[in-house]
Amino acid sequence: MSGDGGTSYKRAGVDLEAAARSLDLITRVVEETYTAGVIRGLGSFGGLFEVPAGYERPVLVASTDGVGTKVMVASALADRPGALEGIGRDLVNHCVNDILVQGARPLFFLDYVASGALVPESIARLVTGVAAACRAAGAALLGGETAEMPGVYQPGEHDLVGTIIGIVEHDQIVDGSTVAPGDALLALPSGGLQTNGFSLARSVLAGAYDEPLPASSRGRADAAPRSTADAVTHATIGAALLAEHRSFLPVVAPLLTLGAVKAMAHITGGGIPGNLTRSFPAGLGATVRRGTWHEPAIFDLIGRRGGLADDEMFRAFNMGVGFVVVAARARVEELIQATDGALTEIGVVTGSGRVEIVGQ
Amino acid sequence: MSGDGGTSYKRAGVDLEAAARSLDLITRVVEETYTAGVIRGLGSFGGLFEVPAGYERPVLVASTDGVGTKVMVASALADRPGALEGIGRDLVNHCVNDILVQGARPLFFLDYVASGALVPESIARLVTGVAAACRAAGAALLGGETAEMPGVYQPGEHDLVGTIIGIVEHDQIVDGSTVAPGDALLALPSGGLQTNGFSLARSVLAGAYDEPLPASSRGRADAAPRSTADAVTHATIGAALLAEHRSFLPVVAPLLTLGAVKAMAHITGGGIPGNLTRSFPAGLGATVRRGTWHEPAIFDLIGRRGGLADDEMFRAFNMGVGFVVVAARARVEELIQATDGALTEIGVVTGSGRVEIVGQ
Repeated sequence: MSGDGGTSYKRAGVDLEAAARSLDLITRVVEETYTAGVIRGLGSFGGLFEVPAGYERPVLVASTDGVGTKVMVASALADRPGALEGIGRDLVNHCVNDILVQGARPLFFLDYVASGALVPESIARLVTGVAAACRAAGAALLGGETAEMPGVYQPGEHDLVGTIIGIVEHDQIVDGSTVAPGDALLALPSGGLQTNGFSLARSVLAGAYDEPLPASSRGRADAAPRSTADAVTHATIGAALLAEHRSFLPVVAPLLTLGAVKAMAHITGGGIPGNLTRSFPAGLGATVRRGTWHEPAIFDLIGRRGGLADDEMFRAFNMGVGFVVVAARARVEELIQATDGALTEIGVVTGSGRVEIVGQ
Repeated sequence: MSGDGGTSYKRAGVDLEAAARSLDLITRVVEETYTAGVIRGLGSFGGLFEVPAGYERPVLVASTDGVGTKVMVASALADRPGALEGIGRDLVNHCVNDILVQGARPLFFLDYVASGALVPESIARLVTGVAAACRAAGAALLGGETAEMPGVYQPGEHDLVGTIIGIVEHDQIVDGSTVAPGDALLALPSGGLQTNGFSLARSVLAGAYDEPLPASSRGRADAAPRSTADAVTHATIGAALLAEHRSFLPVVAPLLTLGAVKAMAHITGGGIPGNLTRSFPAGLGATVRRGTWHEPAIFDLIGRRGGLADDEMFRAFNMGVGFVVVAARARVEELIQATDGALTEIGVVTGSGRVEIVGQ
């Protein structure tokens, strides 16, 4: 954390020795993310990163996001190992996926953590998660800010905001311009809510975080999971809600060199209908065939307990589809093989102008 | 605001027509910030910005920051014209100054606005201020996110977070490496608290925002203001607290081509002692002569009403010094003339390793 002195851990009125240990830890985990582009030791007001050489027309792709009220679930379950670290990883992975949609690879990340009263151990756990996900994505954690804002935040609550900067060669931007009716929709599994729909999920599942997660028969539960990511099960409802927002970079990056990816969508708030056509030319739509992918049990539970219609569920949640890759029919098998079976065909591009969910 | 669908204005449960007007307004003011680097119409998950040509070794300089609990003063005085717009400008200008310290000029900015319940008009006013300051700084407002987080934020409160990305040629990074004892400290006036020290200021001045601001005899009140910025007076305590966090880019940018600026400091949290030596080589210090600059009356008022010692005041507040430029003695008159008298000499670099405030 660079911190510009606007706040400091010592103002939280806590054990200074613990705070110092946390600061040491933060410094170490942050420095472990530093890649070749980081210019060190040249002042501390802003972070410095040299634009990588070798690009003809380098284009920066940037996105700022938070993790929504998933932070409240993490705060409520903060005593579970990994709960706060997980929300830090969620933040980074969400941002990584957002710029991946346009073909960009991460350069660096900046974080902002605010609370009514800073607790050094909590900040250290959050930032440890942020740093771990940055390292996994090859992004330097270039800067950050912590803010103590009594009166703005509810007691015990945090907000966690991240900004990612990535890079893509101008002529390799994935822009969806060649998408056409008949193209295939290939999905990567989300494993859970990612970071969207939590206000609704919390209202339905308040107080139930410790209950065992019931099994679900929705979706492709009969089929063997095609990737290990697909097979994750959670003992409790709370654990299922905190399921990590995965980074799709490791699976998708190798595909970008094949020249077969026409468009991508990160399934965030608004679900499949709200995100699928954002990168398509106007007028195109999609038919998505339910039952072709695995729907994590948490969605079935929320739908049943909340008495929510399918349409409502699909608008609020990703329903198990974390990311969609659009490709010509003729390239489908090649892409599925290139991902070792992680991609699943879930539907087709249409000329209808809207997204229809059919089946089951 | 790009928004990724995670939240939408319609969820705030307010007048939809008003919300639509606000969205139209936001779209227009955001597009008015677009500079040549912005690549439009290529998807909406991340913002795209082409790295400007003509740099030999382009270095990106990045900073994330909030405006601290100044947002609470702005919320309390939200019915005053310009209060929310002002906090939007504060956010951008703070970030602009942070990367200016290393010689960087802004490329683009991303904002994040969160609240327990989004009020479209408030968001539109905040973003209008953000966009206006971006336009003034030549920064494209490339992206943003709004988040509605009931339960995280106190009712009626917002947080406002910004990230700036700027650029500087590698061999023109201002890094303080040539600073030496005897160099001069040249100040630019802050006009008020900027965005730091608000938790303390609010605790001292709670309930007094509508009172007239008493005159102060501290600082160089006898001297004629050397710039118009220096001469701003405020009718009420509330107005003085909301005094804009100025962008020092217009004054400082022309100086950077003269090759006379050795180091710079943005006086944020921690005040003059906490920020002045951050860009100096280790072991150097400074003597700052109080009385050589104008101290806005708000500081005198906070000190007297709060019974705060000078040392405490100088650690919490900028005391009227917004930004410091460090240069060799021989270049001082040239720099002051180049800024048309906006710079004021306030002290000298020493070998003491610490910052001493002397005089008055």
